[in-house]
Amino acid sequence: MEWRPDRASEVPLYKQIANYLESRILNGEFPPGSRLPSERVLANQWKVNRSTVNCAFEELRSAGLVSRIVGRGTVVIRNLPGSGTKQFPNWDMYVKQGYYPPNNPVNQNIYRFIRADEPMINFAIGELSSDLQPVELMKEAYSSIELNNDLGYEHIQGNITLRETISEHMKTYRKIESTPSSLLITSGAQQAIHLIIRGLLKPGDSVAIEDPSYAYSLPIFHSEGLHTHLLPVQNNGIDPDQIITLHKRYRLKMLFLNPTYQNPTGTTLDLERRRRILEICSKFGIAIVEDDPYSITGYDGTSIPSMKSMDKEGLVLYVSSLTKIIASGLRIGWILGPQTVINHLADVKQQFDFSHPSLPQLIAAKLLSSKHFDEHIMHLREGLKIKRDLTIRSLEKELKGIISFSVPEGGIHLWCKLNDEEIDENLLFKESLKKGVVFAPGSTLGSKHNYIRLTYSRVETNCISEGIQLLAQSLRELE
Amino acid sequence: MEWRPDRASEVPLYKQIANYLESRILNGEFPPGSRLPSERVLANQWKVNRSTVNCAFEELRSAGLVSRIVGRGTVVIRNLPGSGTKQFPNWDMYVKQGYYPPNNPVNQNIYRFIRADEPMINFAIGELSSDLQPVELMKEAYSSIELNNDLGYEHIQGNITLRETISEHMKTYRKIESTPSSLLITSGAQQAIHLIIRGLLKPGDSVAIEDPSYAYSLPIFHSEGLHTHLLPVQNNGIDPDQIITLHKRYRLKMLFLNPTYQNPTGTTLDLERRRRILEICSKFGIAIVEDDPYSITGYDGTSIPSMKSMDKEGLVLYVSSLTKIIASGLRIGWILGPQTVINHLADVKQQFDFSHPSLPQLIAAKLLSSKHFDEHIMHLREGLKIKRDLTIRSLEKELKGIISFSVPEGGIHLWCKLNDEEIDENLLFKESLKKGVVFAPGSTLGSKHNYIRLTYSRVETNCISEGIQLLAQSLRELE
Repeated sequence: MEWRPDRASEVPLYKQIANYLESRILNGEFPPGSRLPSERVLANQWKVNRSTVNCAFEELRSAGLVSRIVGRGTVVIRNLPGSGTKQFPNWDMYVKQGYYPPNNPVNQNIYRFIRADEPMINFAIGELSSDLQPVELMKEAYSSIELNNDLGYEHIQGNITLRETISEHMKTYRKIESTPSSLLITSGAQQAIHLIIRGLLKPGDSVAIEDPSYAYSLPIFHSEGLHTHLLPVQNNGIDPDQIITLHKRYRLKMLFLNPTYQNPTGTTLDLERRRRILEICSKFGIAIVEDDPYSITGYDGTSIPSMKSMDKEGLVLYVSSLTKIIASGLRIGWILGPQTVINHLADVKQQFDFSHPSLPQLIAAKLLSSKHFDEHIMHLREGLKIKRDLTIRSLEKELKGIISFSVPEGGIHLWCKLNDEEIDENLLFKESLKKGVVFAPGSTLGSKHNYIRLTYSRVETNCISEGIQLLAQSLRELE
Repeated sequence: MEWRPDRASEVPLYKQIANYLESRILNGEFPPGSRLPSERVLANQWKVNRSTVNCAFEELRSAGLVSRIVGRGTVVIRNLPGSGTKQFPNWDMYVKQGYYPPNNPVNQNIYRFIRADEPMINFAIGELSSDLQPVELMKEAYSSIELNNDLGYEHIQGNITLRETISEHMKTYRKIESTPSSLLITSGAQQAIHLIIRGLLKPGDSVAIEDPSYAYSLPIFHSEGLHTHLLPVQNNGIDPDQIITLHKRYRLKMLFLNPTYQNPTGTTLDLERRRRILEICSKFGIAIVEDDPYSITGYDGTSIPSMKSMDKEGLVLYVSSLTKIIASGLRIGWILGPQTVINHLADVKQQFDFSHPSLPQLIAAKLLSSKHFDEHIMHLREGLKIKRDLTIRSLEKELKGIISFSVPEGGIHLWCKLNDEEIDENLLFKESLKKGVVFAPGSTLGSKHNYIRLTYSRVETNCISEGIQLLAQSLRELE
């Protein structure tokens, strides 16, 4: 657990806090010239009164360690004995001037609830609740592994047994033919996208993404200097002809699609449009990235063919992961594509992090080849459908006429329109946060306002209706 | 195992190869317009005659799938039935024009022997042989983990128990005081360096690295547009005054040092120089990255204080990993630094790969806090010393007067000078490769020629003398 003052201790709380901050100042964790977090933030974090933190700060001031600077807050002093004309590295400047900008504050706010001590009803994070994870299968896989072998670096494309298993898995579950040589194991689909962007594109290149889409929320497109053009998502997915329009104007180098149970709309690109997009991209020489984390979750057990399975010309880089079907903490994703691309991206991954950890790969290989894997997928589909239905029922009970949505047939997301256009979804986000509910405001995922994304895979089933009640309360308070 | 033709099958080898390549062409793994690997490469890879591969290629040609193009080799045909005026994505162009250049070919040549089917005597890869890894401890840690918990995303800074354990470990083994909040878990030290470069620097910034150094071999410095300036490594490390000279000329933003048992020279920066460098960097406001993977391997059990332990002003970003002391396949590294830097780099890591896999972190935490960890470190020091001594003895027997070196007191590298300046270390690399021995030519690690790095941690003890004999043979053949 993160540090916090010990209420059972005889040392007063303010003194514990002062001691803790003092040690961090002396360790250089708050270096000369740096700012301490505000009294409010620390009081919140440690669930103490602001006056307690204030006393602690007073203590540090008397010890000559910090001073209060108007407009900057409480700052670690620079003129420690003997510091003379020292400049010290200005870390704030490094952070600000570095090539990579931070995530947007809303997403930062969402990510801080991952493994936080505070319990939240979480409709924001795209992962499975523990009851949807195949815990028994994982245990079985785990205990079947013999650690006698050398736990050295893995092959830079990833463990060969896992690549063989994924190749089989894609054949069975996704009708995709492949060989293990054309696969690269990545740290989830997120790293796959990052490698593709850095390895195959350059600043100034034009790409098209869906609007709304998960890709919209990823700062890496902009950080890498790409021009992103938007393809509006309709009920049957994007309109293929708009690709031609964009291409004629901007010379698209790549198209990023999440065609099945799309994040966040839950829609599926229909078969005819898939064919047409492949035709267009083949004709104009535009590469396609098919991000496909959800296709095997279709609640009725059927699924539309993936674009990769229809692609015989190597147009498509197929990206998927085990995050939404087994467990996010394994961090197993992959890219399937032309050999020359896979070779290059493996080389780039080597430059980024050398190779992928062995154990999650060994476990994933066992899991995917287990004779019970199919049962797990059936269980998963049922479990997701139950959560979807519960979410919808609660919304209809609490927010009928106030929120509208289409019903997704697979995946994990419900894309909700706030019918009152006056409501600002970012204010709603803040209000809900106070009540212990977190979701993704639509503006982080696309150009349209008045939408929110409710991801129902992560919430424990028995918290869904409470979560929606609290959301409804928050909405009412904004009216 | 990677695919290879089955010699026991009734289907002739050439036919198996043709079938395999045909399926890969039809899957889009070798898309229209792409080039197949050469006959020579494939013959080598599958240990068959070139004529066999030639027959297979002939088969594909008669099937109308490939054609031979002078100067390009065997290419998948573009005019498949109905392809008309299609352009297809030109993947070779994507690879060439992407932002990220590939590793240099020598390093690519080294990395392809990681988990390869071919046995090599490997003096090139910086990891531990299986007899130096704490296999029993790993098994114990592994079996003590209960998988009842949710295997979801980890905290974006890394598992809190692991961060607590590493904080304790650094206190015990490295005299470094820290709190878990100021730690970020990374995928080995390599990702740590990548995050620092991307998160805190920008194209055009000047940094200084040691010459020679591991950093010199990392393409990311150049890929990210940094100007790298060289600080020659002497017996006692770099000369602090040269930092001032470089800084006055180029305004250094960061200094990358590997002060203890440096890679590749094995030298240690002395205490006086450490003090002086901290003083200079504090005075001029230059940040220091202290890469410290080896300090606890000191063979006599002592170690010089790390720069971080001497730094009370938060000048130093301390980077380390478990790669050289437990096992590279865990992929556990970390950065300790000022809170503001750690927060930002955690955010950047989130953008790159979302979070770090759980299991290797849980296992690492158990391992580091095991009561037998200290015994392992003693065993490791002894084991490394034995390998060092064997390597030196073999060199003295086989190459006395031909190769010279200083004797490292810790770490895993022996930096060897070829006394005959006529010898090209890259030719020696190629020659040794043919004989089944791989090492790192000095030119990949620094500006000086006529050096090679022999890393003795990875080679099995009983192969060292054979490896050096083969190296000596290769050298004689070049004379």
